[in-house]
Amino acid sequence: MPEQTVRWVGGPDGHMEIIDQTLLPVEVRFIQCRTVEQVWEAIKALRVRGAPAIGIAAAMGLVVAVQASSDDEREVLERVRLASDYLATSRPTAVNLFWALDRLNRIAKEYHGKGGRAIKEALLKEAKAIRDEDAAMCRHIGDHGQHLVKEGSGVLTHCNAGRLAAAEYGTGLAPVYRAHELGRHFRVYADETRPLLQGARLTMWELQQAGIDCTLICDNMAAVVMKEGRVSLVLVGADRIAANGDTANKIGTYGVAVLAKHHGVPFYVAAPSSTFDLAIASGADIPIEERGAEEVTHGFGRQIAPRGAKVYCPAFDVTPAELIAGIITERGLIEKPGRKAIAQVLR
Amino acid sequence: MPEQTVRWVGGPDGHMEIIDQTLLPVEVRFIQCRTVEQVWEAIKALRVRGAPAIGIAAAMGLVVAVQASSDDEREVLERVRLASDYLATSRPTAVNLFWALDRLNRIAKEYHGKGGRAIKEALLKEAKAIRDEDAAMCRHIGDHGQHLVKEGSGVLTHCNAGRLAAAEYGTGLAPVYRAHELGRHFRVYADETRPLLQGARLTMWELQQAGIDCTLICDNMAAVVMKEGRVSLVLVGADRIAANGDTANKIGTYGVAVLAKHHGVPFYVAAPSSTFDLAIASGADIPIEERGAEEVTHGFGRQIAPRGAKVYCPAFDVTPAELIAGIITERGLIEKPGRKAIAQVLR
Repeated sequence: MPEQTVRWVGGPDGHMEIIDQTLLPVEVRFIQCRTVEQVWEAIKALRVRGAPAIGIAAAMGLVVAVQASSDDEREVLERVRLASDYLATSRPTAVNLFWALDRLNRIAKEYHGKGGRAIKEALLKEAKAIRDEDAAMCRHIGDHGQHLVKEGSGVLTHCNAGRLAAAEYGTGLAPVYRAHELGRHFRVYADETRPLLQGARLTMWELQQAGIDCTLICDNMAAVVMKEGRVSLVLVGADRIAANGDTANKIGTYGVAVLAKHHGVPFYVAAPSSTFDLAIASGADIPIEERGAEEVTHGFGRQIAPRGAKVYCPAFDVTPAELIAGIITERGLIEKPGRKAIAQVLR
Repeated sequence: MPEQTVRWVGGPDGHMEIIDQTLLPVEVRFIQCRTVEQVWEAIKALRVRGAPAIGIAAAMGLVVAVQASSDDEREVLERVRLASDYLATSRPTAVNLFWALDRLNRIAKEYHGKGGRAIKEALLKEAKAIRDEDAAMCRHIGDHGQHLVKEGSGVLTHCNAGRLAAAEYGTGLAPVYRAHELGRHFRVYADETRPLLQGARLTMWELQQAGIDCTLICDNMAAVVMKEGRVSLVLVGADRIAANGDTANKIGTYGVAVLAKHHGVPFYVAAPSSTFDLAIASGADIPIEERGAEEVTHGFGRQIAPRGAKVYCPAFDVTPAELIAGIITERGLIEKPGRKAIAQVLR
């Protein structure tokens, strides 16, 4: 298996190592984070990205922060408090960041009175547990979805929900990695995924690293690739899934789902069960962030549209459940997802 | 109306002026072509592009070539011959280039014995006639299609088949320009059109110049724009149309047609009748050029995919006739195009 997107190097006095994703795919550079400021900057500048990976990085960032403290318990606890507040400002919309910080703060509280050294060790153990649980969760997604990626399959994917976004197997791509591990031969088509090109930059890189046969296409080529019979299934990640199965994911996902339906290609979503938001009845209630024009007009080094061009740039879209053949979670595969089938697997 | 993409300035001793399309949309620079070498370079380097515009430029290039000659008939005819051979090498796959050169060569032959001066004047007259006929043809396409672009319409287009590719009204966009001239208010959504971004660079520029309300989207946003009810019709150009109505056009067009069908949006093609190739029975017989990986991996000025990335890059795709609501030609609108309906309008 290729390198981890984020990992802990050494023992209690060790440090966090990440792949700088902003330099991919041109350069593969690892960053050794030995201060909480470095971790903050890495999250802020998107050097580490993807919900699970951000959670792991934040947890490890807190461990790095308390290393600078003496073993005096009051000092350690003060550092936990300050570093949590500080790390929380690095990416204020990342739910996993807050979830991971909360989890480590609860551990610090549990260890009150056991001494600074014990708290430090407990924090590292918990940070590693978050990483290991994420890896196990990704592996379970892979286990529940690998049978869909058969010998000779063609898999079309959009954006990046792979190893770079999570521990080990990734989420959306976990079935692909497990099928590869099981010795199957298949081909992946990666949509480049405008405007930020996560498919071209990240998915292509990590699949290439893993030795998986992958071909890059522009988003507007997905239709013809399906028409030519090259695609057996579509496999994508998810940002948020409503109680009825409607799924928000990177812009362009909905269009791929419509094309898949037209060509009789099954469309699968692979995501952890934490992606479900059962408080949201349907996709109509998922708010869609609109991004700045520059991502489209100046995304890659040169100006591609006239000055003052009006741009519409939604960051996500919603794929209605009726276009989804199944949602693969770490708890099992939800076929023909609907309110009942989802509640059954998630309960 | 904004500037012409290619025009003749002055009388028999005048010159050809073009907009340098390679600098758009960042800079609007006109090039004055006073030698046949300049014309050759402009066609070769894609400073002038679009089938009709290339034909006009080649014809005017021949006029420029004979200006350098004395009025001796033999010298003029020799220059016509040499310049025709030379200009033919500028873009050897452009059918309109050969068609225009042939037409001027026939004129030169007709004027044998009438003197060098008369030949020169006849060539200029013919080159201007090619331009004027193209403008009239574009206008007729606009006349036959303008009723589809209603007050309040949303028009989605892909690639560029507008004023920059032809004389005055363009082909694919002619109905849009005519509807604008008739005082209607509507909005155009322009797909950026990866990999070469003709929509972002050219369509956005020329619609902006004309004062038409236009919004740029990435290709993968077309689906959500349709889902949101913003699109009343799709309007695209064509590279080649088979006898049964199957239409080859820029890669991505087929996907837009599938999305339009799913959303109940009518999909129209606007193109001159010369785009039909009745010797081709169906789209299955239209050869599709595959382009180099670099157009995808290095199109924005910096590398967006890992070194050695496999890329699939078809330049065109074929939209089957059953997805096309109508084909708008200078001879009329062919509704529900099929072998019979096409033969009727083209005969």
